[in-house]
Amino acid sequence: MECGATAEQVRQVLETLGSAGVRAQVQDGAEALHILAPHASKALKPDRLETMGGVRKVVPITSPFKLASSDSAPGRTIVDVRGVKVGGPGLALVAGPCGVESRDQLFATARYVAEAGVKLLRAGAFKPRTSPYSFQGLGLEGLKLLEEARAEFDLGIVTEATELETFDAVERTADLIQIGARNMQNFALLKRAGRSEKPVLLKRGPSATLEEWLYAAEYVLSEGNRNVILCERGIRTWSDHARNTLDVSVVPAAKALTHLPIMVDPSHATGRRDLVIPCARAGVAAGAHGLLVETHCQPEKALSDGPQALLPSDFLQLVHQCRAIHAVLREATVPTGLAF
Amino acid sequence: MECGATAEQVRQVLETLGSAGVRAQVQDGAEALHILAPHASKALKPDRLETMGGVRKVVPITSPFKLASSDSAPGRTIVDVRGVKVGGPGLALVAGPCGVESRDQLFATARYVAEAGVKLLRAGAFKPRTSPYSFQGLGLEGLKLLEEARAEFDLGIVTEATELETFDAVERTADLIQIGARNMQNFALLKRAGRSEKPVLLKRGPSATLEEWLYAAEYVLSEGNRNVILCERGIRTWSDHARNTLDVSVVPAAKALTHLPIMVDPSHATGRRDLVIPCARAGVAAGAHGLLVETHCQPEKALSDGPQALLPSDFLQLVHQCRAIHAVLREATVPTGLAF
Amino acid sequence: MECGATAEQVRQVLETLGSAGVRAQVQDGAEALHILAPHASKALKPDRLETMGGVRKVVPITSPFKLASSDSAPGRTIVDVRGVKVGGPGLALVAGPCGVESRDQLFATARYVAEAGVKLLRAGAFKPRTSPYSFQGLGLEGLKLLEEARAEFDLGIVTEATELETFDAVERTADLIQIGARNMQNFALLKRAGRSEKPVLLKRGPSATLEEWLYAAEYVLSEGNRNVILCERGIRTWSDHARNTLDVSVVPAAKALTHLPIMVDPSHATGRRDLVIPCARAGVAAGAHGLLVETHCQPEKALSDGPQALLPSDFLQLVHQCRAIHAVLREATVPTGLAF
Amino acid sequence: MECGATAEQVRQVLETLGSAGVRAQVQDGAEALHILAPHASKALKPDRLETMGGVRKVVPITSPFKLASSDSAPGRTIVDVRGVKVGGPGLALVAGPCGVESRDQLFATARYVAEAGVKLLRAGAFKPRTSPYSFQGLGLEGLKLLEEARAEFDLGIVTEATELETFDAVERTADLIQIGARNMQNFALLKRAGRSEKPVLLKRGPSATLEEWLYAAEYVLSEGNRNVILCERGIRTWSDHARNTLDVSVVPAAKALTHLPIMVDPSHATGRRDLVIPCARAGVAAGAHGLLVETHCQPEKALSDGPQALLPSDFLQLVHQCRAIHAVLREATVPTGLAF
Repeated sequence: MECGATAEQVRQVLETLGSAGVRAQVQDGAEALHILAPHASKALKPDRLETMGGVRKVVPITSPFKLASSDSAPGRTIVDVRGVKVGGPGLALVAGPCGVESRDQLFATARYVAEAGVKLLRAGAFKPRTSPYSFQGLGLEGLKLLEEARAEFDLGIVTEATELETFDAVERTADLIQIGARNMQNFALLKRAGRSEKPVLLKRGPSATLEEWLYAAEYVLSEGNRNVILCERGIRTWSDHARNTLDVSVVPAAKALTHLPIMVDPSHATGRRDLVIPCARAGVAAGAHGLLVETHCQPEKALSDGPQALLPSDFLQLVHQCRAIHAVLREATVPTGLAF
Repeated sequence: MECGATAEQVRQVLETLGSAGVRAQVQDGAEALHILAPHASKALKPDRLETMGGVRKVVPITSPFKLASSDSAPGRTIVDVRGVKVGGPGLALVAGPCGVESRDQLFATARYVAEAGVKLLRAGAFKPRTSPYSFQGLGLEGLKLLEEARAEFDLGIVTEATELETFDAVERTADLIQIGARNMQNFALLKRAGRSEKPVLLKRGPSATLEEWLYAAEYVLSEGNRNVILCERGIRTWSDHARNTLDVSVVPAAKALTHLPIMVDPSHATGRRDLVIPCARAGVAAGAHGLLVETHCQPEKALSDGPQALLPSDFLQLVHQCRAIHAVLREATVPTGLAF
Repeated sequence: MECGATAEQVRQVLETLGSAGVRAQVQDGAEALHILAPHASKALKPDRLETMGGVRKVVPITSPFKLASSDSAPGRTIVDVRGVKVGGPGLALVAGPCGVESRDQLFATARYVAEAGVKLLRAGAFKPRTSPYSFQGLGLEGLKLLEEARAEFDLGIVTEATELETFDAVERTADLIQIGARNMQNFALLKRAGRSEKPVLLKRGPSATLEEWLYAAEYVLSEGNRNVILCERGIRTWSDHARNTLDVSVVPAAKALTHLPIMVDPSHATGRRDLVIPCARAGVAAGAHGLLVETHCQPEKALSDGPQALLPSDFLQLVHQCRAIHAVLREATVPTGLAF
Repeated sequence: MECGATAEQVRQVLETLGSAGVRAQVQDGAEALHILAPHASKALKPDRLETMGGVRKVVPITSPFKLASSDSAPGRTIVDVRGVKVGGPGLALVAGPCGVESRDQLFATARYVAEAGVKLLRAGAFKPRTSPYSFQGLGLEGLKLLEEARAEFDLGIVTEATELETFDAVERTADLIQIGARNMQNFALLKRAGRSEKPVLLKRGPSATLEEWLYAAEYVLSEGNRNVILCERGIRTWSDHARNTLDVSVVPAAKALTHLPIMVDPSHATGRRDLVIPCARAGVAAGAHGLLVETHCQPEKALSDGPQALLPSDFLQLVHQCRAIHAVLREATVPTGLAF
């Protein structure tokens, strides 16, 4: 739109699009206000819009990732999760147990997470499990405990939404809604997340290409939710020393294609406690905007993923080392034209 | 249960399990009636049940795939899809276009499918697509056209359920409900399919191990639906001459582990029309119980997956050749102890 | 060359090329005699040759696989291995133990291989092993036993050359020299094989694309040996029910790109005895020109790869079933334009 | 051996082993002198040795990697490459063009490599190429240029040995002999490298597991050469945003299993210039002992691998950033029991 376009002019453009059956989004950037209509087909003639008041130009979106593409935003997106800025110059840390198991377990873990200066707590109330006979999470009771932990330790809550039926409940509790790797192409779930007011953490599927991952983000963005954080969590390969293969190069590769922030989950990427800290460091060094880490007050008693959960003392080491690397990177000059 | 166990005795066992919070299923085999309780925990004491009238023995299920495992059934499961027996000595063929696009397209294709003696028509009314901006299927209108095609050509309908919201509609139309590869671990969808009266075709996920696939089948089975057909459709590897890599050895490997029937989809496995027939033949030769094949009256005009759809004349060749191979296999003696 | 080109004219062209530092090969096809100069660079001007006597036309080779490409030969190559035609209408079978272990073992196995009507015996005298501490084969003693087996049972010998040092000895004994999967890009070995008079069986590397495989064949062909047979033996993927993943679609994909024959090795492809027969059938059904199968008179005593070696009785089943499928395929009409 | 064992006693043990056909190696550690006999079979009775003078104890080696295993050495191995210690507290950097192309190209590149304080120059004189028609390196002429560069810039030379025929020449020139990824299981080449006095850089094969890689190292070690450096260079997966997938977790995983040093090659791992620096940083952060990087004075004119070669200015950034991260890691406390 023109610089001085009025609210009424914007409304009229949206109405015109709407009457043509095209949903649109308003993006109010620093330099200009854009109206984005990713679902518009080629049948929509630009002339009709270009003659309207306040319209500067109609530009076709050529990238297949219409809203996720770097071209579609003036700079990098910064997602605010209860005060934590993800995608900016800081390092966003999210930590906690795989699943909520009990108040004691959750609080004991949350306590040392908070003491380490970490502001976001992760834990699943609903757990997607390979076998129908495995522990499936505490459900609503788990969400209640997460809310108590937020109040007690002043921590933002990151928890997974696994299906439409319980999405509303997860959405009410979460400060950041996680979409798990197995649901990366659960399009109904993505669309629901796209209609949420809460930011979304979108894990990469175990065999998803970067392109497919960005298309999945596009499902969320195209429904109107602009606050999407990507999270690399290891891919499935034949390499068998770890549960998955951390694809660390996807961090700079994603940053070259999209304005969305990207985090790394070294816990699921490795499945082995002794590999988590080196891989967390690698993720930060590769340029990730944050980390999602599993830690448990008593890993040997964990109901799921115990072997990959960091002990409290190791967790402190991870935070210490990763912050040190991140600080060094901020100071080091970065060559022009290179992904950082 | 004992041979002469009464209906009342069966009811009492089910009631006792129910009062302990354990759902159970009755399996009425040729030799004996079994009551299966896959969700029972170790807390449930066998003594309590073993003293009840009509109970012969309480046997713990040791396989992780409690209901899918070969051990849990007296023989191979045969799934009846509108009269077509899948899992028996015959070769079950399912064919049709990727998606329903119009009555003309669907009927033109259905006509030569039926003329080839194939009894089951496949076509998606709801299409899960990588990009939110791609053709997503005709939806309810597509289901209506499928019902018309069934009436017109006397064909059973195989079509995909992609989400809970539209599951009921798909279920009403389908004779066999397809769960697509990307939804293989969409547990909410699997559980819903497990509560259906219609049989389910469960495609293997693009990076799912055989074990994970059987666990996914277990999600369906454990909700009470015993009619599950597995379908290999190629896995994601680095091998780049085809869209996916047809993992033909999973056919005998699956048959060694489970009593469920298994089919092969050579179209998605290759993504290249010129590889479909050789791979279809390979699937049959490996021992598959059936094939799921894409064919289109005018592939060059297809809205999705045109390059892999067989031309009508090629489709007839496929049917002819695969039936010939299947006939030879039935005659050839098979060594004892080897998977066939 | 022109139809009536004289031997002297051919000699002069070869000499001209030679004086420009370009090695060339004479290919005497049914319709015309071609002089192939795959190593010629663009610096070589065609005018100089086109004006020479007997030369019809100078055609640049555009395919990257200058000699392996389908374009470079008038039809499919048929390789003659001691009377067995590989690449023609017949099904070429090669069978035997993984390694030569003793005269008793070799002869006992060779006996039932020959009785089944199989004409080619495989067994390694030099075994490439992952660990330096594993059984590395009987070496020269093994070659001697293979020669005795040939004399005794009238079988052609297929055995592996693993390094330059022992290549000459292997070459003297073998009727078909195998280059193993791990050596697919051992370029020195490939070039040596290219200077041999004996035909070469080139196994696909565990992570080689079809393109890389054809380039490897090109290393052999470009040294002058036109008798190369490709052999698919399973690729390395994350799929873990078998040792490797048999990539059956590479058979028709290769046949579309190259005139060279292609075989399938279901034993290394699976590593599991119970999967070998179904996968052998799949390979034949996909259009392979032959099979390379491991069988052992007493698999439980094998010094290497025992778990994948077929028992004698199973081996007979394999031969019986695969011949039956192959016979059916020859009769079935094949659609024009499709790979078979 | 006992602390005070005499040279004569050592000689007698070696002689006894030798007369039993067992090659052995003397390892003179800080605390004790060990005689290692990895090729010894179980047939060798320990009693015979245990009664000999100076022998303290005969211990069977249980690890399959008899010499590569962490158990077989008192601490981490430090390999000295012309004064550069690889495997110790420092960060070893090796840089240069993919191949030697000319004196101008080599010297121009070597100049800024040396100016950055890097002590080791890499460049191939013999290049293994996928196609027989690609540039194969300058050969002996290339080696001569490398020697001149060493003299001119006081740089150690790292260059690849591709085959036995030219091994001696490469060995004479190289300060560190590289065995390329495609030759990781070229056992004849490994054994030859094992008989060299020069240290060996062993690249991981594109589809080699960590276990297979250590077995390959074992081939070198078991011939007597104890100076082996591992080098991760990306593995082949379906992930397609980079040429290979850098498997960064193999760094700590290898360090947990073996005493050998490990480096990372971010250039071949990515094949994309813009991903090299982030991946180099990730490798260092994961705990690698060094980096092997491609840089070229004029990448756009490179005869091979130009798209992955760093520009001079970017190379300086890489060195600067990676040293900064390495310095931080050395200061950061490392938790006991965790791989670093």
